[in-house]
Amino acid sequence: MADRTVGLVGLGVMGANLARNIESRGHEVCVYNRTTETMRRFLREHAEGHRFRGMETLEELAAALPSPRAIILMVNAGPPVDAVIDALLPFLSPGDILVDGGNSNYQDTEARCARLSGKGIEYLGMGVSGGEEGALRGPSLMPGGSRQAYDHLEPVLRSIAAEADTGPCVAYVGPGGAGHFIKMVHNGIEYADMQLIAEAYDMLRRGYGLEPQRLAEVFSEWNSGELESYLIEITADILRTEDDQGREGLLLDYILDEAGQKGTGRWTTKASMDFAVPTPTITAAVDARALSSPKELRTHAFNLLPYRDEIEFGSHETTSQVREALYASKICSYAQGFALIAKASEEMNWGIDLAETARIWKSGCIIRARFLDDVSAAYRIEPKTPNLALTDRFVGEIASRIDSWTEVVVAAMRAGIPVPAMAASLTYLNSLRTRRLPANLIQAQRDYFGAHTYKRIDREGDFHTQWY
Amino acid sequence: MADRTVGLVGLGVMGANLARNIESRGHEVCVYNRTTETMRRFLREHAEGHRFRGMETLEELAAALPSPRAIILMVNAGPPVDAVIDALLPFLSPGDILVDGGNSNYQDTEARCARLSGKGIEYLGMGVSGGEEGALRGPSLMPGGSRQAYDHLEPVLRSIAAEADTGPCVAYVGPGGAGHFIKMVHNGIEYADMQLIAEAYDMLRRGYGLEPQRLAEVFSEWNSGELESYLIEITADILRTEDDQGREGLLLDYILDEAGQKGTGRWTTKASMDFAVPTPTITAAVDARALSSPKELRTHAFNLLPYRDEIEFGSHETTSQVREALYASKICSYAQGFALIAKASEEMNWGIDLAETARIWKSGCIIRARFLDDVSAAYRIEPKTPNLALTDRFVGEIASRIDSWTEVVVAAMRAGIPVPAMAASLTYLNSLRTRRLPANLIQAQRDYFGAHTYKRIDREGDFHTQWY
Repeated sequence: MADRTVGLVGLGVMGANLARNIESRGHEVCVYNRTTETMRRFLREHAEGHRFRGMETLEELAAALPSPRAIILMVNAGPPVDAVIDALLPFLSPGDILVDGGNSNYQDTEARCARLSGKGIEYLGMGVSGGEEGALRGPSLMPGGSRQAYDHLEPVLRSIAAEADTGPCVAYVGPGGAGHFIKMVHNGIEYADMQLIAEAYDMLRRGYGLEPQRLAEVFSEWNSGELESYLIEITADILRTEDDQGREGLLLDYILDEAGQKGTGRWTTKASMDFAVPTPTITAAVDARALSSPKELRTHAFNLLPYRDEIEFGSHETTSQVREALYASKICSYAQGFALIAKASEEMNWGIDLAETARIWKSGCIIRARFLDDVSAAYRIEPKTPNLALTDRFVGEIASRIDSWTEVVVAAMRAGIPVPAMAASLTYLNSLRTRRLPANLIQAQRDYFGAHTYKRIDREGDFHTQWY
Repeated sequence: MADRTVGLVGLGVMGANLARNIESRGHEVCVYNRTTETMRRFLREHAEGHRFRGMETLEELAAALPSPRAIILMVNAGPPVDAVIDALLPFLSPGDILVDGGNSNYQDTEARCARLSGKGIEYLGMGVSGGEEGALRGPSLMPGGSRQAYDHLEPVLRSIAAEADTGPCVAYVGPGGAGHFIKMVHNGIEYADMQLIAEAYDMLRRGYGLEPQRLAEVFSEWNSGELESYLIEITADILRTEDDQGREGLLLDYILDEAGQKGTGRWTTKASMDFAVPTPTITAAVDARALSSPKELRTHAFNLLPYRDEIEFGSHETTSQVREALYASKICSYAQGFALIAKASEEMNWGIDLAETARIWKSGCIIRARFLDDVSAAYRIEPKTPNLALTDRFVGEIASRIDSWTEVVVAAMRAGIPVPAMAASLTYLNSLRTRRLPANLIQAQRDYFGAHTYKRIDREGDFHTQWY
């Protein structure tokens, strides 16, 4: 492993942890923070016996780095990124490398790549997933932009990335905003995974009446099968955690049921609109968070439109049905996310390798799961498949679960338990496998009121009818 | 009615029809088109005995108009609007009025309003709905932007707008992009209405086996009740139209089931993300169109994952259940659209009157319906209601239909018939009336992996737990 000196700007929790990760792999890190005191505190806490050098100005930072300079920006997405770039530019030389490791919008990254390549700066927009812990111990890295920059930094990136049984979780994603695009979709899929798990939990507990202890066991069991993943694992932990404020029972039961969000989920839905690739399960998950607040309104609505809050289904053997519903729903959600990546890659000429995308999510990031091996394998065998759910690897898994899946969604609908993401996946699959959709009626309506014309099934051309 | 002289730029079908509408109400119209021959042809076809004057340049147009000039732009949304504005500006004086009657994005309109007000130009962004026929005979008009411009043009706008029993379908919507915003949501609701009707049709025909003749009767019957509307009416017409290319049976059956779209539906979903107000039924309708093509993929998927294409439910008395499902789903879709308008209005300080919004959609536009009287009444009585579905006017209508609605969605799920919009409305309602959602689990997961903190139900503050 080549020993390098890199610069890092922005010592928030993510930046500080990434700096420590890089240094721990044998590299020297020159650290800078706009508020110098933050940099000094970082050095006081972490520099002893380690190869960190504190920089008080960007000029000093640039002067300290060997050519070509490599500087990683860990600042808030949006205008702060441009502000740092503009402040750095006077001190950089052609061939120098800038890496944006924040959660930037892929369109911003696309624009920055173009702007900086005009100045001879090699720019990488790099998705970093895994939270604070991942940044410190090994994140999943999704770098896109300058190939030259990637090749130069590859030894460093491979050394700091999470290590899976299939190799380090980093690969060159593609030019321009490709890296931040797949990070955005990763987060959209994360929203869907979390919502699907929440719905499965809700059905098991409120619908089928499972007790917390049994619930924890169920999720632990699930974590040794097809659903094995970080999010299932921590759900089992959560279902075992007693209240830490002195109340009786699960801590979970004292947590307010209003979910927060930051933005990348919404971005995925907006991209699905821009590229006309539906991601209904991801969108349902984003919407579910927004619908969860304010709780006051929901309580008011419940009083107006009540239903049995506790439903008696008896505790028959339904957990495996719920597991199958969750798994099939998950396949469809990944199918949507990967279809979106495939379409964007095609339109933007990014050349993204879908199998590699699944591979670098195998460890380090929040959606890490055994399942991603299957996704990776499916795309390796059928790289041009129009839909993951229809690949040889998955179509049988779907087919054998449709009945259970349908029954869980039906039971939820009848009980009034909202399962928007599971229902969206099922409807997605049903739309996908319908030979004859009523879209012909929509075309007839559009031609009727707007002379939009329509196509026929029995001959070529565009037709218009005077309907009335 | 004051006799005015107005300018109109852009003689495509919509522009030409709007010009003829204005002239027919006693006003003089100075018409301009970038391709002069289009203007000359318009004059040849329509000028005889009418008060049109053809203009060959924008300078000539400006010179022909009395002060303050009023010019309506009917050009394609996007850069063409800015191009015409820039070309016109040198010939305009402070106080002159520009009206953009195209389908512009509300954010563009917002920016143009600000830019032009700096130059003393009074700008209106005006949604025009009703297609070509509406433009000619009386559209629904949704003008937003300069109040001064609206007041000056009100007599003209009232004279050309559709006339409903509740008055002309025009009102000042609000400043900036308010007019184009509600036009966008109108179109999103139109997508949902069309998709819900298509799903109801699909369930009745493919699910419950109704023959075309009976289907036409059913939609005609529906058109005399709570569902009375233009779209139900034309659906009945479509279900009575024999093939016009010499084949036997319904023309509908020869129309390719791939639905097209232009963009305002997608914009509504993107706005729902920006304002964090879920519109799942509208989004499901937008997604359904995208999922309808390509048909080839669906046929492939059907072969891999087949189900009984013809389902035998018997022809029991289910049409009223489907009608109730359609109506309840529709209420929820309007509830979403109006909630989005309310939130945007609040954040943008537009002061939009929701009752008036429903009123001006009562005639002229595609979603015109008796139902809008109820929506208007609901918002007049409860202007601050958080949700239309929970108003006194509608909550009983929902409550009495939940069982039928649920059974239709359940039957569709079991039959594999995709009803994404009906299911999205039902899930929306169920989310809305759930006192205790599993969003607490999502908050626990977010705190577990990202230290995002959570709130508790029993005490104030932000809490973080070391879960593992």
